[in-house]
Amino acid sequence: MHSLSPFQPTAASLPPKGATYLQKQVQGISVNHHALNPLSFILRAATVYPDRIALLHPDVKYPVQYTFRVWAQRIQNLAYALIEAGINPGDRVAVIAPNCPMIADAHHGVLGARAIFTPINTRLTPPEVAYILEHSGAKLILVDQECTHLIRGTTIPTIVSNDTGRDDDPYEAFLASGRRFSRERGWMGLDVERDEDAGAVLNYTSGTTGKPKGVLTTLRGSYLAAVGNVVEGQMNKESTYLWILPMFHAAGWTYPWANVFACAKQVTIRSVDYNAIWRHFLHSRVTHYCAAPTVQIGIVNHPDARPLPQPVTAIIAGAAPTAQLIGQLEQQGIKPVHVYGLTQTYGPFTRCYDQDSWSSLSLEDRAKLMARQGQSFATAQEVRVVYPPRHDNDQELIDVPRDGNTVGEIVTRGNIVMKEYFRDPDATKKAFRGGYFNSGDLAVMYPDGVVAIMDRSKDLIISGGENASSLAIEQELAAHPDVLEVSVVARAHEKWGERPMAFAILHPERSSKWEGNHDAFVADLKKHARTRLPGFATPEWVEVVQELPKTSTGKILKTALRKRVAKL
Amino acid sequence: MHSLSPFQPTAASLPPKGATYLQKQVQGISVNHHALNPLSFILRAATVYPDRIALLHPDVKYPVQYTFRVWAQRIQNLAYALIEAGINPGDRVAVIAPNCPMIADAHHGVLGARAIFTPINTRLTPPEVAYILEHSGAKLILVDQECTHLIRGTTIPTIVSNDTGRDDDPYEAFLASGRRFSRERGWMGLDVERDEDAGAVLNYTSGTTGKPKGVLTTLRGSYLAAVGNVVEGQMNKESTYLWILPMFHAAGWTYPWANVFACAKQVTIRSVDYNAIWRHFLHSRVTHYCAAPTVQIGIVNHPDARPLPQPVTAIIAGAAPTAQLIGQLEQQGIKPVHVYGLTQTYGPFTRCYDQDSWSSLSLEDRAKLMARQGQSFATAQEVRVVYPPRHDNDQELIDVPRDGNTVGEIVTRGNIVMKEYFRDPDATKKAFRGGYFNSGDLAVMYPDGVVAIMDRSKDLIISGGENASSLAIEQELAAHPDVLEVSVVARAHEKWGERPMAFAILHPERSSKWEGNHDAFVADLKKHARTRLPGFATPEWVEVVQELPKTSTGKILKTALRKRVAKL
Repeated sequence: MHSLSPFQPTAASLPPKGATYLQKQVQGISVNHHALNPLSFILRAATVYPDRIALLHPDVKYPVQYTFRVWAQRIQNLAYALIEAGINPGDRVAVIAPNCPMIADAHHGVLGARAIFTPINTRLTPPEVAYILEHSGAKLILVDQECTHLIRGTTIPTIVSNDTGRDDDPYEAFLASGRRFSRERGWMGLDVERDEDAGAVLNYTSGTTGKPKGVLTTLRGSYLAAVGNVVEGQMNKESTYLWILPMFHAAGWTYPWANVFACAKQVTIRSVDYNAIWRHFLHSRVTHYCAAPTVQIGIVNHPDARPLPQPVTAIIAGAAPTAQLIGQLEQQGIKPVHVYGLTQTYGPFTRCYDQDSWSSLSLEDRAKLMARQGQSFATAQEVRVVYPPRHDNDQELIDVPRDGNTVGEIVTRGNIVMKEYFRDPDATKKAFRGGYFNSGDLAVMYPDGVVAIMDRSKDLIISGGENASSLAIEQELAAHPDVLEVSVVARAHEKWGERPMAFAILHPERSSKWEGNHDAFVADLKKHARTRLPGFATPEWVEVVQELPKTSTGKILKTALRKRVAKL
Repeated sequence: MHSLSPFQPTAASLPPKGATYLQKQVQGISVNHHALNPLSFILRAATVYPDRIALLHPDVKYPVQYTFRVWAQRIQNLAYALIEAGINPGDRVAVIAPNCPMIADAHHGVLGARAIFTPINTRLTPPEVAYILEHSGAKLILVDQECTHLIRGTTIPTIVSNDTGRDDDPYEAFLASGRRFSRERGWMGLDVERDEDAGAVLNYTSGTTGKPKGVLTTLRGSYLAAVGNVVEGQMNKESTYLWILPMFHAAGWTYPWANVFACAKQVTIRSVDYNAIWRHFLHSRVTHYCAAPTVQIGIVNHPDARPLPQPVTAIIAGAAPTAQLIGQLEQQGIKPVHVYGLTQTYGPFTRCYDQDSWSSLSLEDRAKLMARQGQSFATAQEVRVVYPPRHDNDQELIDVPRDGNTVGEIVTRGNIVMKEYFRDPDATKKAFRGGYFNSGDLAVMYPDGVVAIMDRSKDLIISGGENASSLAIEQELAAHPDVLEVSVVARAHEKWGERPMAFAILHPERSSKWEGNHDAFVADLKKHARTRLPGFATPEWVEVVQELPKTSTGKILKTALRKRVAKL
């Protein structure tokens, strides 16, 4: 589609003749133990499939593509360049960029320098970015040219990428500065991290309330989470992963490494552009992608949407997919895989596993089962739903009954739980209450051991003394044929305390039906709701909107809706 | 094919109502770190797919099949039964059995008791078995009824299995004795192993020269090797693994755990029975199996051989597959995957990875590339080929040039190298010379980083001062259309020191052609050899034989051939 033939990697990107991928032998490291580190994936991929395409960045003025051999060299260059720039083991290297080669490089190259990769959300404001740079103590910033306004006036050394892959690009010059050393020393010249529990990534949560918190992950956790994603996604060297999810979000759920472990091809696009997404689905043989339901809705409702010749796996997280979305994805030959996780768990730590018995069910019944968050991921440890603590120091965790009804909090533990909240021992201690990571998500446990989220605790609607799950209400409202997307929050009510209020976007192909007559639609939607929901959960108010406020990752911002409701 | 409908698991095999798979919370274990342990696989499989078939043992008088839910209960019963029988953490539990449910159970249940699983080759003699029992200090023996003659007179407590799965089977009674405790305590009652470097399996090498050595592996290594096998084999819950390789051999290359990690079905058969193999290929939807080339030859030349409707992956190790074998496998829709490894490396630690460019080559040329041992496995660390040490204490390892020509020794290190030779620190030290595991296999390194074995050091033929690889000679002789299988060893020669001698089995469909005229065949084979091999590598002698001496795992016993040659 894009002709990449005129593209030539910079001279510094080409490995020296006879380059090998052996690492330094560290004194005292045992023969039968190497620290789990996702950096090893690129070394192996470059050994086994040197000439396969590893990274493709096509939709820019200067498209680039790198083989594993060339990409490994660029990663090595980055590691040396960082070290030469004064980065020491454990230092934080901030990266502010949309999906592009630089942020993909950094996932590996920063680890090569034994530093901590610190991605920053490009949708934040300058003061928010300043807070993260300050809190993380970042020693260096790699920034995309479109994001430089976020760090104007910073005193931290900064390398700008123009995302061209050409010699005159400052980022390429930085890589070339590392190449000087790698020519002499190669991978053997880089110190190997001995401690697999050393920090790997420092991700800041979006901080909808209060200051963002720094989620520090480990090399071991990143390795095992990435392997888990490869196993769950059945990825291999024939796979092509399309970057729709931003890599700055929870280190792209470890897919920047998972793709390399699988020796798969990665395609980066700078923004969620549905035209580009369908172009790549149809012409780049995409087999895997991750996205929240709201983005998936945009995908299946695009005019170019059509059944795909290759099998595609859509990993869905952030919210449960509706029956309608599942049906539409399957119609295009896209297999929906519903997973659940948090930045604190390296992305997915549960998956809703299809059961054989589901195949005979109706789409709607199947969708109800698939909307549940599921069970422990391949490399995760156990997941429980426990009663909330009775007081702050309560360390005892008691499981709720497996009745699909009693609400508790999802907790988990094991290798794919974060190391800590960076520089915040109090928050870490609170999050690790009872020897488990406390997710803050309210859920029930079904008899089959499947977890289903009811809500974030703050999203629960206390209506007439009953707990109404905003998610469950949304699930039912979304089943209305004329609804494209819907969000529900609590609104104060004199008699009942709170009652649900829904914000709905009409389906573009069916909105003309209700043109100038939204009241009739509202009445119809309420009628639909009454047949499916108990009275206390039926929305008292419905507002038709053109769009819903969302985070950079496509999650609906209920805080914004609540602010709006407060003014009503 | 087999009707399993009358089969009912014993009452003790059925989990109590509301059984869960949560493990005990160990004081002081951190929230974000669980010890890698392949025992966790069965707990997760039973949670996610409780009712899928996990284990099928069909070709016996009393066929059995267990779902993951039932199998997990049996494994828990075994763990409790062992503990109640006095087994302490770190104790060795010996198992002497062909492929059957008991030895499959033991891979998991022995770890559940935090003991060390010690499988013993059923083809050994009673004195050899006695040596292993003595050396390992086994505290208990689980033995199949067909193997009791191997341990007659032992004073070690012994549990016999009649392989029936019925209440009156002593092994089932043993499991039931564990069930009493599990009813009260479940998985929560079993202590969790905190140390992932604790011993998992104690495998004894065949000891072709000298006493067998005990190869001790770790939980961490077993976990990572099993995950590596799942990734390399692209196994998943739809896979069916047929047990042709004996599980007592290097713990079945970790497949007893790999299958469970993948949530795949395992089918056990007690012996290498080609009729049964084809029956299962055709009717049990087998997708994966492991076997040495000699067994693969038996498979593809069986009268029932025909193209299979489902894709099948054949993992081949023990020797390189010939062009003819590769061609025959592919004809039946079986994809050959050539891997290489040793008991000391948990089975495979390299794989010969197909390259895109090979698809345009002739079968013969492709087979030459595929016969190489390959590159580092998914979870292995690096593989090198180094010059042999100049003296015993030489710790320096120097890589041979990557010229595909200079012979050195294969060395490796990392998580899938054994913990140690049990109770043999001297042998361990020698094996770990230079900070790597020294395989004892002689090989060359190609410019593409691919390792190719020339020979075990003792199998090399020094002919007129030249090093002739018996493997390379066999590879060429096997290309003769009338050869089914061939083995080459050194034979003393007055003038040249040594010269190759070949032992060949004629292909059954073409043996009539040479009936009563083996001399003509020998002349024809030598002529064939001269066109393909240098003079010093051309066999001086060829003997037509009906069969070749083999180990229990199908490896040709060159020691036996050498003894025969010594008498000539």
